[in-house]
Amino acid sequence: MTVDLAPLLNDEPAHIVLLVMDGLGGFATAERGSELEEAHTPNLDRLATEGTCGLVLPTGPGITAGSGPGHLGLFGYDPTQYELGRGVLAAVGVGFPLEPGDVAARGNLALLDDAGNVTDRRAGRISDDRAVPLVDVLNERVAVDGAEVFFQHISEHRVLIVLRGDGLDARIPDLDPQRTGVPPKSPTARHPDAQRTADLLARVDDQVRAALEDQDADVLLMRGFDTLQDLPHMDELFGVTAATVARYPMYRGVASLVGMEVLPKPADRAAQVAAMRDHWDDFDYFFMHEKETDRAGHDGDWDDKVAAIEAIDALVPDIVDLGPDVLVVSGDHSSPTQLSGHSWHPVPTLMWGPRVGRDAVTSFGERACAGGLLGQRATNELMPIMLAAAGRLEKYGA
Amino acid sequence: MTVDLAPLLNDEPAHIVLLVMDGLGGFATAERGSELEEAHTPNLDRLATEGTCGLVLPTGPGITAGSGPGHLGLFGYDPTQYELGRGVLAAVGVGFPLEPGDVAARGNLALLDDAGNVTDRRAGRISDDRAVPLVDVLNERVAVDGAEVFFQHISEHRVLIVLRGDGLDARIPDLDPQRTGVPPKSPTARHPDAQRTADLLARVDDQVRAALEDQDADVLLMRGFDTLQDLPHMDELFGVTAATVARYPMYRGVASLVGMEVLPKPADRAAQVAAMRDHWDDFDYFFMHEKETDRAGHDGDWDDKVAAIEAIDALVPDIVDLGPDVLVVSGDHSSPTQLSGHSWHPVPTLMWGPRVGRDAVTSFGERACAGGLLGQRATNELMPIMLAAAGRLEKYGA
Repeated sequence: MTVDLAPLLNDEPAHIVLLVMDGLGGFATAERGSELEEAHTPNLDRLATEGTCGLVLPTGPGITAGSGPGHLGLFGYDPTQYELGRGVLAAVGVGFPLEPGDVAARGNLALLDDAGNVTDRRAGRISDDRAVPLVDVLNERVAVDGAEVFFQHISEHRVLIVLRGDGLDARIPDLDPQRTGVPPKSPTARHPDAQRTADLLARVDDQVRAALEDQDADVLLMRGFDTLQDLPHMDELFGVTAATVARYPMYRGVASLVGMEVLPKPADRAAQVAAMRDHWDDFDYFFMHEKETDRAGHDGDWDDKVAAIEAIDALVPDIVDLGPDVLVVSGDHSSPTQLSGHSWHPVPTLMWGPRVGRDAVTSFGERACAGGLLGQRATNELMPIMLAAAGRLEKYGA
Repeated sequence: MTVDLAPLLNDEPAHIVLLVMDGLGGFATAERGSELEEAHTPNLDRLATEGTCGLVLPTGPGITAGSGPGHLGLFGYDPTQYELGRGVLAAVGVGFPLEPGDVAARGNLALLDDAGNVTDRRAGRISDDRAVPLVDVLNERVAVDGAEVFFQHISEHRVLIVLRGDGLDARIPDLDPQRTGVPPKSPTARHPDAQRTADLLARVDDQVRAALEDQDADVLLMRGFDTLQDLPHMDELFGVTAATVARYPMYRGVASLVGMEVLPKPADRAAQVAAMRDHWDDFDYFFMHEKETDRAGHDGDWDDKVAAIEAIDALVPDIVDLGPDVLVVSGDHSSPTQLSGHSWHPVPTLMWGPRVGRDAVTSFGERACAGGLLGQRATNELMPIMLAAAGRLEKYGA
């Protein structure tokens, strides 16, 4: 059962704030609660008390979401309908100005033996210092007819490669064999329309090998070929003018892909709130992003994750003072420190505002949220509820 | 995942009662609970204690349902698959005997200036006294080849218009421009098949203007063109013989559209229960409807909504005494008095009966229901659970 929102949207004045703590969710063990449950969060607990809570699943039960699908869900998109693949996320993650039709991929600087077999998929974990000049060499020397080729260093052995031109097609299997002792794969097409792109990549691959001769790496193992889909923008789908105060390139990039205005990069958390205050009447939807919760999750650093949650908690009164009609606090996925990475665990979520109502939940945590009025639902279902609570949706049917 | 019910239906004797408190749901604030939570409802609380509770969403998260889709959901229909538009609801709301293929619309009696621009979309909020004679004039004077035309007064400036004939098509944009200072729109077709209907409406419009010359209104601004879909009946879909003891035309009308027997109009709430008792063995599904909860919600009248809930509560023992296998108490949508209208908030729901089981909920209210065994689900998912608890569904698979 899906209702088309478009005919129901109105343009009443409204202020919606989405506060994303990246990788927020976790899980309790015999020893203690989750990071969120154990953190001292008097302000978030107050919002939980005054609002409604629940649990969200960005990509369905049991599916661990990456940052791309996780954020698309929060922005109201079905992340299984709109793909943001590895190549595109690598590009937006380093701030590369990707254009629709570009084909992007991740590349690993790698080493080959004399027989052409891969001996090290990460070129001896090459340092940034040594990798950056190699990428410069690639940008200088690699040029093919029929497409522009861009290389951009990401970190260590990781490189972004982008092809730009007419009629490119990303349906190319990975060239990275994902193991040593075998040669890199040659570019092939998974679909006849991608044959020209495969041919272009074969020439790029030849030139890369030539350019890297006698350097600290021998080849670029490309994978995750991906085209930038032209995503419908949030103003079209949801009738909101949206802006982000995110600080990290990937989240600023994903926000720009859904049509958000990307405000100048705030220096810190407090500056994110200040930027929303400065632009409060210019937009009706703000996306604020906190990265440290996820970073600590990846590092398996319990104390750091708790500290990041508490740092956000301290800012909550300033966000409330802005006077939003709806404030949602959630995460793009869970990142339990026990697993040192993303996970499928449902993400604790709260919604607060004068029309939201309240439930019996009085603290913000995974187990408390399980009893909340928001229920357990797909992340992208939050968006219509936020619009409704902001007064932006008319009645369906008479 | 949807299991086809038809092969599973049996015809064991069963008694199911659906008690709908229109607009039942609300929300708590800092000051007090919802209307349902604050009402004194010892009998509903007993059912909640002895049965299972949950929350239902008639048209999905965030979507505020009208009465038509809200009731279709309660009757087990996906309201996004079967539309009941404004025109059809207007017709059933005044008891007009609509037939499949009829095109119905709402019309506003309105005033025009000499240039033909709308000056008042409600003809000065014309009174019933003055509007009824105008509708009589329209019924006398308007006649076109190719279709019968019926007008029926609804209230004040509101008029029902129905076209009946072969090959009519309701894909006609509204003629009501929804603002003053511009002329009414001319009938056009959104689909080629609707061109003949648009041509008929143009002639109707001319005749309406001629008939209204020198009267208290100049024109009828038509909108919400709608065809009566031939809905599959409840006996086909769910194997139940159903009857309603609803008192108001719209709900009696919607019930008739899904094939319910519409019993003679009961004089009051107690007579509704008496009518079920009188026909207890004639049907296996009864729909009882209470309007006052929604009326009070629209009026923003807290005390009235609480009083209506308490009045229904007082009748619960009489309904229980009938001996239903399943009794469900729910609403077609929420109507919080704080919002003076329908809302998207989940609707508290209870199910009671010897095979239903019980959960930990001991009072009937929004926050309590959030922890119930019925969970939070689409309203139309109640129907298969009701059938199951009534013993009417066989096992799926071996």
